[in-house]
Amino acid sequence: MKYLCFNGHDRKNNELFCNVCGSPFEIIVDEKYHDKILDNYPYIKKWINLGEVTTPVIGNGDLYFKLDYYSPTFSYKDRGSRTLISYLASRYDNHNLSINEDSSGNAGASIAAYGHVAGFNVNIFVPETANAMKLGQIKLYGANIIKVKGSRDEVQNVAMKYDGIYASHVLNPEFRDGIRTLAYEIFNQFEHMPDRVFIPVSAGTLLSGLFSGFKHLLDSGEINKIPEIIGVQPEIISPLCSQINGTLFDENNDKSSVADALVSKKPVLIKKMYDIIKNYGRCVTVSENEIITARGDLALSGILTEYSSATVYAAYKKLNKYGKNLLILTGNGLKTNY
Amino acid sequence: MKYLCFNGHDRKNNELFCNVCGSPFEIIVDEKYHDKILDNYPYIKKWINLGEVTTPVIGNGDLYFKLDYYSPTFSYKDRGSRTLISYLASRYDNHNLSINEDSSGNAGASIAAYGHVAGFNVNIFVPETANAMKLGQIKLYGANIIKVKGSRDEVQNVAMKYDGIYASHVLNPEFRDGIRTLAYEIFNQFEHMPDRVFIPVSAGTLLSGLFSGFKHLLDSGEINKIPEIIGVQPEIISPLCSQINGTLFDENNDKSSVADALVSKKPVLIKKMYDIIKNYGRCVTVSENEIITARGDLALSGILTEYSSATVYAAYKKLNKYGKNLLILTGNGLKTNY
Repeated sequence: MKYLCFNGHDRKNNELFCNVCGSPFEIIVDEKYHDKILDNYPYIKKWINLGEVTTPVIGNGDLYFKLDYYSPTFSYKDRGSRTLISYLASRYDNHNLSINEDSSGNAGASIAAYGHVAGFNVNIFVPETANAMKLGQIKLYGANIIKVKGSRDEVQNVAMKYDGIYASHVLNPEFRDGIRTLAYEIFNQFEHMPDRVFIPVSAGTLLSGLFSGFKHLLDSGEINKIPEIIGVQPEIISPLCSQINGTLFDENNDKSSVADALVSKKPVLIKKMYDIIKNYGRCVTVSENEIITARGDLALSGILTEYSSATVYAAYKKLNKYGKNLLILTGNGLKTNY
Repeated sequence: MKYLCFNGHDRKNNELFCNVCGSPFEIIVDEKYHDKILDNYPYIKKWINLGEVTTPVIGNGDLYFKLDYYSPTFSYKDRGSRTLISYLASRYDNHNLSINEDSSGNAGASIAAYGHVAGFNVNIFVPETANAMKLGQIKLYGANIIKVKGSRDEVQNVAMKYDGIYASHVLNPEFRDGIRTLAYEIFNQFEHMPDRVFIPVSAGTLLSGLFSGFKHLLDSGEINKIPEIIGVQPEIISPLCSQINGTLFDENNDKSSVADALVSKKPVLIKKMYDIIKNYGRCVTVSENEIITARGDLALSGILTEYSSATVYAAYKKLNKYGKNLLILTGNGLKTNY
């Protein structure tokens, strides 16, 4: 494996942005795929275990759901946090270091849990307007919550400059790389791979991590094509879909979606996200009403997800029927039980 | 398999209480244990699947936790509901029937989800004082919520007399029988069985179901003794512990515990519960402060449970150290994230 920036430049010194072109980095896997999923992470010496499972797939015929919130902190983000924090724990002997992350949602809770268990002091930087219930979960895991005045960008700036390690789930390649396990599980759970995989898209960690896993399976000769990846965004927060589909979106709008895990209006990974979707999928927007209806419909079929996860079902219902569809449900419905 | 009441009388006609002695019924398994867990339920023709998994065990050395809230509606009750509702769905052709249940908590949510998916009209009867957040989950699964004035007993009386099937999780033998799967999973997950298994005790469904599974494994020659079962109750709601240990408890007190899933002050299964604990275990009470501390400590180790589940960790910390301990954590912590 090696670290390359999105433009192919080498990484010198664990920097988060390429010194040559300013792009973030990703991990390029060169070993072949191993059946034992964790063996695909040679840079992790010792995994933190909080109760991770192969998340269940239910459904039949043309439509399947992967309940990816069967996870220690109840969202798919644990795939990334587990990998990033296990890596940081082996890299830094002094676990009394602080790790700093800006997220008031699922990533914040996930980094908080794994970070605290690994022995780090965890600081989670949030906007002043952050949801009290989600902050409650973060606090229970022992993190310090630091409220920052101003925009999402300003929150990030403060977190980035704070004393300690900047454990951003977006910028650290190991977090995104942890999402590869999702692709491997899908590969193991389906005798014939799905034709289309639906995911919600915000900062792009799920999209890039999932793609990287599929790419690895393809390069290893385990699959013969990458499933079509359907990225889904709320209409009112659609920075990727607007670029792909040529629709209007004002990245400076002050709207917020009921899908409150999908907040990225100016995703730093946008170029990478664009390239993946342009070549391997498409981008679909859904209205607030469609999201609300989809969440309700899922609950009536016994699947309680948060609104952000229900976006994929809303998108599925809008598209032409085609092939075998897998919808990734990313967050537990109790997180937004209102 | 056959149905016998707790005093050994036969069941004639699906009645919930024995015509001879008034006792509830239980299912007696006479087939030997099958490795394929669901094959131990010959009376279920077709299982409802909402994403049930073998719930993970984490821990090491002397102390292990089974995260039994990795489940469709986020509590262990799904083991029972899945079995009861799958059974009812095959027994009644007309799924437009109503099923009626009195529970404002995890059992209510669980029966609501499985019942709706099976095509029944689900009525959940709750006290006027029921927690709005827990009712929110029940509503999302499509159930009608019917508020009843008066005590817990009065709520039950109304539910029992209502038009349709009384799908009580306490009285229907199939619900308790569904909990056997927990014993089988433990058996499969440990090379050497735990010496002690800690469970919270309220109405006695978990206790009687788990015991029945262990008993089946013992009778089938798969294990050579039943682990010690440590039943745990809040001090202020301790109808079983008070009988076992000879301590004082007023079943007419109007106290409620922070462990809000543990509400049974006059459990109808008390005789059965007493017999199991008297012969195979012990009963431990924990204070409100001990419960709150235990829940916080678990969260700091990355395990977010509801207070009712944390009781077992509070009890574990109070007992003398002995052998290998398994603590069953029954409910997702987001259910009581206050």
